[in-house]
Amino acid sequence: MAWDGRKGEPTMLNLPKRIYIKEVGPRDGLQIEKTFVPTATKIEMIDRLSQCGFADIQSAAFVHPKAVPNMADAEKVLAGITRQPGVEYSALVPNLRGFQRAAAAGVKRVELTLSATDSHNINNMNMTTEQSIKMIEQCLNSGLDVDLIVGLAVTFGCPFEGVPTFSRLKFVLDQLSAMGIKAVGLGDTSGVATPLQVYNTTSRLLDAYPDINFFFHPHNTHGNAMANVFAAMQAGITHFDSSVAGLGGCPYAPGASGNIATEDLVDTMNEMDIETGIDIDRLLDTARFVREALGHSDSATLRAGKISDLSVEGPHRQCNR
Amino acid sequence: MAWDGRKGEPTMLNLPKRIYIKEVGPRDGLQIEKTFVPTATKIEMIDRLSQCGFADIQSAAFVHPKAVPNMADAEKVLAGITRQPGVEYSALVPNLRGFQRAAAAGVKRVELTLSATDSHNINNMNMTTEQSIKMIEQCLNSGLDVDLIVGLAVTFGCPFEGVPTFSRLKFVLDQLSAMGIKAVGLGDTSGVATPLQVYNTTSRLLDAYPDINFFFHPHNTHGNAMANVFAAMQAGITHFDSSVAGLGGCPYAPGASGNIATEDLVDTMNEMDIETGIDIDRLLDTARFVREALGHSDSATLRAGKISDLSVEGPHRQCNR
Repeated sequence: MAWDGRKGEPTMLNLPKRIYIKEVGPRDGLQIEKTFVPTATKIEMIDRLSQCGFADIQSAAFVHPKAVPNMADAEKVLAGITRQPGVEYSALVPNLRGFQRAAAAGVKRVELTLSATDSHNINNMNMTTEQSIKMIEQCLNSGLDVDLIVGLAVTFGCPFEGVPTFSRLKFVLDQLSAMGIKAVGLGDTSGVATPLQVYNTTSRLLDAYPDINFFFHPHNTHGNAMANVFAAMQAGITHFDSSVAGLGGCPYAPGASGNIATEDLVDTMNEMDIETGIDIDRLLDTARFVREALGHSDSATLRAGKISDLSVEGPHRQCNR
Repeated sequence: MAWDGRKGEPTMLNLPKRIYIKEVGPRDGLQIEKTFVPTATKIEMIDRLSQCGFADIQSAAFVHPKAVPNMADAEKVLAGITRQPGVEYSALVPNLRGFQRAAAAGVKRVELTLSATDSHNINNMNMTTEQSIKMIEQCLNSGLDVDLIVGLAVTFGCPFEGVPTFSRLKFVLDQLSAMGIKAVGLGDTSGVATPLQVYNTTSRLLDAYPDINFFFHPHNTHGNAMANVFAAMQAGITHFDSSVAGLGGCPYAPGASGNIATEDLVDTMNEMDIETGIDIDRLLDTARFVREALGHSDSATLRAGKISDLSVEGPHRQCNR
């Protein structure tokens, strides 16, 4: 069999055989849409995603409707979806009140978000990082039967304070670790991470906290999301967040990119023989539905097709002069 | 001094201290523009690029004007630019005729392009790869005082034949090596390479041909250009092609991406402390000129600013909820 340089070849690179993708489009993607996305559209989006093979779909945020108007119908969305076995319909919350709302809505896995820097935490949630950490303790002590994970925003760079020092990350993570938090998301909230930084930071964190399952939450603002994923995988990260159709980004900055598009991530993993468990064709159908429903997208695969579409019949046909 | 996870920290990754960027926008970028770009615009573009620190600016292609109408004024462009010391104003050619034209226009470094697969070579240049290789020999024997380098198209995937086998690449490269060719570009012409493939292929080629300086020519069609650059650097590649403003791509596929944007490459290298020799601010001025002149661009840095612009005053300010 001819070696094609792509699959089945031993490599010196440390790459996983399998990665796990949490689809966050219904939350991180929709929260910044300028116009209200109808509840029925959100439900259809999640129901379609449920057919693609995701083990975790972050389906809503339980936040104050004045802060994020598009998440005002979180309870209705969670009540309206058709639950598939094997899929966790998780949610994001900023505080104890949101945690309680999510639990009341039947959510079994909740991501509580806080920021690596105080300035960002204050700007985002009107409290210091330490106050957020205390609130996590309150959530854990609430007696509610909910799996609590943590998303750490601006891990790789904060618009107010720049790049957090490693000791600052440790200051936060030591407390989360002591509380028994088992999963922490490393958010590149503003999309400013570089692959070298991701490799170095995640390597050190994986060494320092062997009991925490770190997941990486990339944004593609500077076009580096896939390079950062590639670096994170080399460091040993196997869990990633992404958004169908590349939703997300900043409503105030036209053209700013959102999360890495799930279909771009899955398509590239497929071509590297790294298992995701996701059905790329169903996912692409869903991405087209989302693009149609919202009127926009930011997805290389929606633009150019799957990498394996490269053929004389495919969209690349005319592009090779 | 606080460790910021980004600079000055030892890493297990094999990354170079310095990379070398050949700016190919005036050729690969402009050749597919649908409307003719005025000669004066091309000249101003190259003259502006000449102030940015590039050692090599691929300034034109000497091809039949019917095949690539936008390159019909190659001689005029080369005659009109203001040459700066230390800058090589190179050109691309498909054949002996182009080689002779380039030499007559005073070009001292010529890249002859051929394809890793016969089908692509025939489609692109109406001859087989072996016929192209014979023509390289004719160029070398022409007695013209020109440095001849080779660009190998579709190294990582061909729309007609899929991914070339490694033995096919060796078949071509053995002949180029025997002829004494000292620099070969590995073209991801359709942008279908994956970082694992780039790492594996370039590692093996660097091992097999220690006398050839391989450079990598990425396209961003599937959003993987920076990941592929990162993988190539890890394998030992230090020379890259890119286009200011992310020009290039396919005129027949709206939204298809072109070369990696030079300013995106330089900005990310700056943030990883990898030297490029390029003045990012002059380059961004040039990218804005190009965007204005052509009416389009595909550049994360033009959209979102430099990574270091991340600040409360910068474009990221409102994007962190």
